[in-house]
Amino acid sequence: MNRQWIYRERPTDKVALTHFEWREAALPVAGPGEVLVRVQMLSVDPSQRIWMAGPSYRPMLVPGTVMACYGVGEVVASKAPGFAPGDRVEGDLGWQDYAALPAQALRKRDPARSIEQLVGALGITGTTAWIGLFEVGRPSPGETVLVSGAAGAVGSIALQAAVLAGCRVVGVAGGAAKCGRLIAMGAHAAVDYKAGALRADLRAACPDGIDLFFDNTAGDVLEAALPSMNVGGRIVCCGAVSVYDQARAPAGPRGVPALLIARRLRMEGFVVLDHAQRLPAAESALARWLDEGRIVAPTHVVQGLAQAPQALLDLLAGLNVGKMMVRVEQPPGA
Amino acid sequence: MNRQWIYRERPTDKVALTHFEWREAALPVAGPGEVLVRVQMLSVDPSQRIWMAGPSYRPMLVPGTVMACYGVGEVVASKAPGFAPGDRVEGDLGWQDYAALPAQALRKRDPARSIEQLVGALGITGTTAWIGLFEVGRPSPGETVLVSGAAGAVGSIALQAAVLAGCRVVGVAGGAAKCGRLIAMGAHAAVDYKAGALRADLRAACPDGIDLFFDNTAGDVLEAALPSMNVGGRIVCCGAVSVYDQARAPAGPRGVPALLIARRLRMEGFVVLDHAQRLPAAESALARWLDEGRIVAPTHVVQGLAQAPQALLDLLAGLNVGKMMVRVEQPPGA
Repeated sequence: MNRQWIYRERPTDKVALTHFEWREAALPVAGPGEVLVRVQMLSVDPSQRIWMAGPSYRPMLVPGTVMACYGVGEVVASKAPGFAPGDRVEGDLGWQDYAALPAQALRKRDPARSIEQLVGALGITGTTAWIGLFEVGRPSPGETVLVSGAAGAVGSIALQAAVLAGCRVVGVAGGAAKCGRLIAMGAHAAVDYKAGALRADLRAACPDGIDLFFDNTAGDVLEAALPSMNVGGRIVCCGAVSVYDQARAPAGPRGVPALLIARRLRMEGFVVLDHAQRLPAAESALARWLDEGRIVAPTHVVQGLAQAPQALLDLLAGLNVGKMMVRVEQPPGA
Repeated sequence: MNRQWIYRERPTDKVALTHFEWREAALPVAGPGEVLVRVQMLSVDPSQRIWMAGPSYRPMLVPGTVMACYGVGEVVASKAPGFAPGDRVEGDLGWQDYAALPAQALRKRDPARSIEQLVGALGITGTTAWIGLFEVGRPSPGETVLVSGAAGAVGSIALQAAVLAGCRVVGVAGGAAKCGRLIAMGAHAAVDYKAGALRADLRAACPDGIDLFFDNTAGDVLEAALPSMNVGGRIVCCGAVSVYDQARAPAGPRGVPALLIARRLRMEGFVVLDHAQRLPAAESALARWLDEGRIVAPTHVVQGLAQAPQALLDLLAGLNVGKMMVRVEQPPGA
C-alpha cells in the first residue's frame, strides 16, 4: 500500500488543507530504467507554493497528481544501473510512502550523513544559501551583508556563511526571540521587522549601508532595505515568501527601478537547480563547516506523512524554527 | 556678461518654469588650472530631473546655483595645460553662456564632428545606449530585445544597435507616428503603449518571449513586459522617465522580485559615467555606424538659452522627437 497526498486544486488565494486529499494506492513498481524508493524525509519548502501558482522553473503542478516534494529516501528496488537496494537517494519523491522514478531524476547521497543534514544544510536548503551568496551575490570581506528571513532555513545558513566570509552581517527576522538567535549565530546586528520602525532600524543596523542583500522574503523588508543599498550593491533574490501565499502578486517595491539606476544596483533571481556544476563545491564547503562546528543548522522535524499539508501551511505562516521537514514513518509491515 | 538660469528650488511635485530664474552675471574668469568655455549646445536629459530629486550618482543640485547641464562648447581662454582657445570640449557646463571649469572636468572632442553629433549620438546619449546594451545587457544574435522609450534619444540608438547586433528587436513608443519611425529604423515590430492592450500587444510582438529588455521608461511598460521575460533574461535599467517628474517614487512593478526568481532574471541599473574605460570603444563604434549610414540619430534642436527650462519640461512630457538639445546663441558682441 502506498499512502499519498494528492494535490486537488490550484488555490485561488491562500493554500489550505482542503487543497489536498489523502489516498491509499497500490505500491508502485519500478519499470525499466526506474528505481523504487521508500520515502524517509520530506523537505518542506516555500517553493512548493510557487509550483501551485503557475509555471515557474518547473511546470505548474497538475491537480489530481501526488503533491510534488523534494525528499530523501532509500532504494528498495532498482531496474537501473548504478542504483541498488539500500542506496540513499534524493529527488522529487512527492508526498507519499513510495516513489518509482527514472534513475536520472535521482541523485545518490552519502549514507554516512544524517538524513536531517541531507535534507537541510547539505540539501537544497544549504546549497541554495551557498550558491546564492557566493555565486550570485559574490561578497567581499568587510562588506555589509543583509539577510532577510534570517531565522529561516536558507537564511540562517546564508547568514552564517556570510560571517565566515568576513562580512559584517545583519539579519532580519520577526520577533525578539528569533533576533536573539541571529546574534547567537554570529550576526553583528539583528533587525526585528515586526518592531514598527523597519526602515530606521535597518539604517541604524547598517551605518555603512548595505553592499549585498540576500533576500528571502521580499515585501516590506525589501522596500525598506532599498534606500540603504550602497552604490554597486547586489540584491540576491532568493525567495519572496511574503508574497507567495496569495491570489496575485502585489505591487513591487518602491524604488524599483529608479534606485537601481541611481545606485547601479544588480537585482538577480536564481534557482539552485541551474547551478548543478557548483553543487559539489557547495556541499563540501557546507559539510566541512558543519563538521567543524562553524555553522549550526537547526531542524524542525514534523512526524508523519499525514502532517505534510499542515507542515506546509505552518511554514508559510512562519511558525517553523529552522529547516522544516516531515519524517515519513516506516510503513506498517515494512 | 554671462546669461544664466539659476536653479531656484527643489520641486515638490512636477518641475515647472518657476523653479528656475534668469540672471545676468559677470563673465567668469579662468583661474589657475581652469578653462573658460563658451557654451554652444546644451544636452536636455531626463537625468537633470533626477539631480533635483535627491542625491543620486551625483550630489543633489543646490538651489541658488546655475542649473547643471551637460553640453559642448569652445575654449575661449585657458590657464590649464592641454587646452587652448578654439578647442572643442564637453562637460557639465550648465545653463549659461560661459563656464570656467577645472581642466579635469572637461573632455576634448573632435572639432571635425558636428556639434549635434557630439551632443547626441556621440555624446552621453549614444554611449549610454551602447554601454547599456553591450556592457550590461550583452545580447546574443537571434535573441529578442525589447526597447522602451524607443523613439527617444537613447532608445532609438539602442534599438538600432540591437538590430545591428543581429537581434530581433521590438520597440515601444507612444502613438502610431512614433511606432512608424521605429519600423523605419529597423525594428522588427513596434508596440504603441497608448493603444490600450499593452501586455497582450507585447506578447504578440514577442512570440518567443523577451531575452533582453532595455528599459528607458519603467512604469506600466516594465510591469507589462515582465511576464514575457524568458528564463535567464536581463533587464537593463537605463531610465525611468515615467516616474522622474513626481513627488515620490510610485510602487514598483508587480512581479518583482517573484518573477525575477522564477525566471532567473537579472535586473541591473547603470550609469554611463562608471564605464569611462569603454567610452572609446563606444564612441568609435557609434561614429563608424553614423559614417556608414547604418544608424540615424534624429535631433530636436531648440533655439536659445532662454528656452532651456521649457525644453526640459517638454522632454519630460515626451514632446521631443529625437535627441533634444538647446543651441546657445552667439552672445552679443562676440
